[in-house]
Amino acid sequence: MRDIQNQKDLREIDIQKAGVKGIKYPIVVLDRAHGTQHVNATINIYANLPHQFKGTHMSRFVEILNEFRGQINIKTFHTILQEIKDKLHAESAHMDIEFPYFIEKIAPVSGAKSLMEYRCFFSGQNNKGNSSDFLVGVVVPVTTVCPCSKEISEIGAHNQRSMVTVKVRFKKFFWIEDLIRLVEESASGEVYSLLKRVDEKYVTEKAHQNPMFVEDVVRNVAQQLNKNVNFLWYSVEAENFESIHNHSAYAYVEKNSKGSFT
Amino acid sequence: MRDIQNQKDLREIDIQKAGVKGIKYPIVVLDRAHGTQHVNATINIYANLPHQFKGTHMSRFVEILNEFRGQINIKTFHTILQEIKDKLHAESAHMDIEFPYFIEKIAPVSGAKSLMEYRCFFSGQNNKGNSSDFLVGVVVPVTTVCPCSKEISEIGAHNQRSMVTVKVRFKKFFWIEDLIRLVEESASGEVYSLLKRVDEKYVTEKAHQNPMFVEDVVRNVAQQLNKNVNFLWYSVEAENFESIHNHSAYAYVEKNSKGSFT
Amino acid sequence: MRDIQNQKDLREIDIQKAGVKGIKYPIVVLDRAHGTQHVNATINIYANLPHQFKGTHMSRFVEILNEFRGQINIKTFHTILQEIKDKLHAESAHMDIEFPYFIEKIAPVSGAKSLMEYRCFFSGQNNKGNSSDFLVGVVVPVTTVCPCSKEISEIGAHNQRSMVTVKVRFKKFFWIEDLIRLVEESASGEVYSLLKRVDEKYVTEKAHQNPMFVEDVVRNVAQQLNKNVNFLWYSVEAENFESIHNHSAYAYVEKNSKGSFT
Amino acid sequence: MRDIQNQKDLREIDIQKAGVKGIKYPIVVLDRAHGTQHVNATINIYANLPHQFKGTHMSRFVEILNEFRGQINIKTFHTILQEIKDKLHAESAHMDIEFPYFIEKIAPVSGAKSLMEYRCFFSGQNNKGNSSDFLVGVVVPVTTVCPCSKEISEIGAHNQRSMVTVKVRFKKFFWIEDLIRLVEESASGEVYSLLKRVDEKYVTEKAHQNPMFVEDVVRNVAQQLNKNVNFLWYSVEAENFESIHNHSAYAYVEKNSKGSFT
Repeated sequence: MRDIQNQKDLREIDIQKAGVKGIKYPIVVLDRAHGTQHVNATINIYANLPHQFKGTHMSRFVEILNEFRGQINIKTFHTILQEIKDKLHAESAHMDIEFPYFIEKIAPVSGAKSLMEYRCFFSGQNNKGNSSDFLVGVVVPVTTVCPCSKEISEIGAHNQRSMVTVKVRFKKFFWIEDLIRLVEESASGEVYSLLKRVDEKYVTEKAHQNPMFVEDVVRNVAQQLNKNVNFLWYSVEAENFESIHNHSAYAYVEKNSKGSFT
Repeated sequence: MRDIQNQKDLREIDIQKAGVKGIKYPIVVLDRAHGTQHVNATINIYANLPHQFKGTHMSRFVEILNEFRGQINIKTFHTILQEIKDKLHAESAHMDIEFPYFIEKIAPVSGAKSLMEYRCFFSGQNNKGNSSDFLVGVVVPVTTVCPCSKEISEIGAHNQRSMVTVKVRFKKFFWIEDLIRLVEESASGEVYSLLKRVDEKYVTEKAHQNPMFVEDVVRNVAQQLNKNVNFLWYSVEAENFESIHNHSAYAYVEKNSKGSFT
Repeated sequence: MRDIQNQKDLREIDIQKAGVKGIKYPIVVLDRAHGTQHVNATINIYANLPHQFKGTHMSRFVEILNEFRGQINIKTFHTILQEIKDKLHAESAHMDIEFPYFIEKIAPVSGAKSLMEYRCFFSGQNNKGNSSDFLVGVVVPVTTVCPCSKEISEIGAHNQRSMVTVKVRFKKFFWIEDLIRLVEESASGEVYSLLKRVDEKYVTEKAHQNPMFVEDVVRNVAQQLNKNVNFLWYSVEAENFESIHNHSAYAYVEKNSKGSFT
Repeated sequence: MRDIQNQKDLREIDIQKAGVKGIKYPIVVLDRAHGTQHVNATINIYANLPHQFKGTHMSRFVEILNEFRGQINIKTFHTILQEIKDKLHAESAHMDIEFPYFIEKIAPVSGAKSLMEYRCFFSGQNNKGNSSDFLVGVVVPVTTVCPCSKEISEIGAHNQRSMVTVKVRFKKFFWIEDLIRLVEESASGEVYSLLKRVDEKYVTEKAHQNPMFVEDVVRNVAQQLNKNVNFLWYSVEAENFESIHNHSAYAYVEKNSKGSFT
């Protein structure tokens, strides 16, 4: 059979990323409390394609995933990228892994236990000359109470669920549990799966004593990240699903922002 | 060219619906304040297919849409269904139309004007012997303040955006503006696109003086619908995007429910 | 603390479903090849609320989930529904569980192994007097080649990925692996995660020798389901993500359809 | 009333973007064939927030939108950004507008007319010292036929719908109609809303005579964009919804890529 992908290409256009996108795959990630956790991930894997080649051998990406089945995590990430470069004869390799991660939380007064889901992602690249890049991200639901509404109203204050997305570049291994914790402590209040009435009283009061704009949340998270020398870079965004509007309030802060955008 | 769709089929299986799904189409709907409104709809159109025929002529559905371009609305709906039956030689025809609809709202104190989006849908069927069915639906964002949280907490009460979905069968034409209004008046508070500080104080206080569970909202809406003899049937569902949980509280009530489900 | 939920309600409106929606939860389901499989599910749990009570005790639903952690599956489903009725003092209980399920597939020529994801769901209800209902559903991606396009074109035929959704009511336990298999054998071709070139040749040729309309797929599935006395009821829908259109072709067939709709 | 947003902030953290996200808004865009087109847009508007201020005045963003109602388009974009900077006393302003856009297409043989939807977006920023940036993007559905599958198979070739997303920076005004056309001519075939049988034969044959990998599509688009000096920068990505897999094949190329990523 002819290998169409290996044919010459004359258009002289290098492709930065070619590969497979949106593969659903069960993986096993590291879990501080239990050693490991089985999760259902969505994965993208790409390699560069130099201008002289017509196509990438897409099936090889899936073969590499199968090889590492059961061992796809933060520690093996760069080995997988190296394998992609080798098997695809590529100069750069890129992988994104997105997955739900469950942590047991304890309700603040009753002590009732329940599982909370957090969306997490790893995104990394290995380039020519072996320079590499790696991001870890978490999406953490929290509660925010509006300081303006609280100040001006006789009773109550509007509040809502907010999603905080943090991405970090870092020096050495850390537990995503700690990053999630840092975010939860930076908002008006935490979100739980199970709260009894005594807990509901506690979280309501705590949040109202601790009102925060969406801008306050990203600044609090940034301030904590600034204190930790392990984090070389970060971006923090928060989105409030406003209870009095049908749109979101939003804030974004990035360490060492160059001000450009795509 | 052979007409494959018209070939005989021997499997003896009648198909209830065959057609096109997810067509994006600009339509013009009736607007009480301005006469008409241009909206971007998503449309499904189906006809039944008797067991003896192999396939439906899918392109005819799109041709019918084009014929009625600019005149697809609550008043022409049944004419379109009849046209589908005729052109497709079918015994039944079905159409779903879903679209965003904008209404100008006035902030309660400042009087500031802004546009609010509501998701609306029409869904109808015309059967053998010309029996027919038609539903109109609206999805209305509102504010809910938790009565339990308010009762047990020293300060504040958790609150959130909620989405209320109402579907009705009815006797004679009505304005969706009135159905939306009925829902907005049945919750702890209304949602706006633009609120100045004096408005924010007002909506916060009003909502906290008017706490409601998700169950209260569906009952309030049902109670109002019960009073109006034009509504022969309804379903009401409300989903609270809880500010203290990462899941929703939900309630559903239906007039003359038969208790079955699919 | 006052129990607001337990207060009297005077509106005289029974609520069919009140509860929690969209809970993300890791569960362990039965797997024919490996005994069990860890999956990340999305769960809704509801109970009815008689007209005289103001609210449901939402936290109890999550407590029940926690009790059954690790044992939420097709065999324990009705025990969970019974527990909901007991703990909530309700006359009816309802639960929906939706999850991704992975099955190892073997490429048809090379024998290369890979994992395919299928979306599955359980949906069940337990009513007054203990009458109950239970549905199992699967969403299966397949390939369809258009018979009309093949017939009229000198070369090729348009083809696309299609999603087939099957829901069944049944008498006794069955493996979802068998239901998925039945669907995969009813289309122009199967979908795989990993295909080498010899496999790609095989699946392309097989699919083109086996062209099917979206109507053919639902009829083939229905025909196979009709042969199995274990299936008391079914609905089958297929959606073709047409390669020559930006909308889908769609067909729906249901056993013992009453022709009504919601 | 106290202006909480105007209070001093001591955390010394500049916020790059603070504002409102996901506002649904009807706008009127320029349409080459008809002058203007009414579309339902989704809009984000942000301003920077210097470290010394606690919060942004979110309602002003919506007021600015209302001011420009009916005149939000590619030509007024920078005036709106300037207005944001002025009204918010900000150093930079950012806006994203995403909307569906309809173009009438003519079937290649029958001449049948129908409307096709394309997703479009504008994204722009105005910085300190008035340096500014502006992107226009389009998402274009096309058909791709796999060259490998065609080469190795006795009959047929797998093909599928693909989505091509192009973003450009440019010197002077251009019509998005032309950018969409450029993409449609760079794939195996075009996608239509309405095709009669003679058209279906034509598009099937044309696509099979013109097989392309996902890498070919991005290179063809890039090659055409390279020829037009009006385009200073571009990114092109293509995603094939593979008919033989349950994941996508993907390729990305960018002019003057710096190789970094976020």
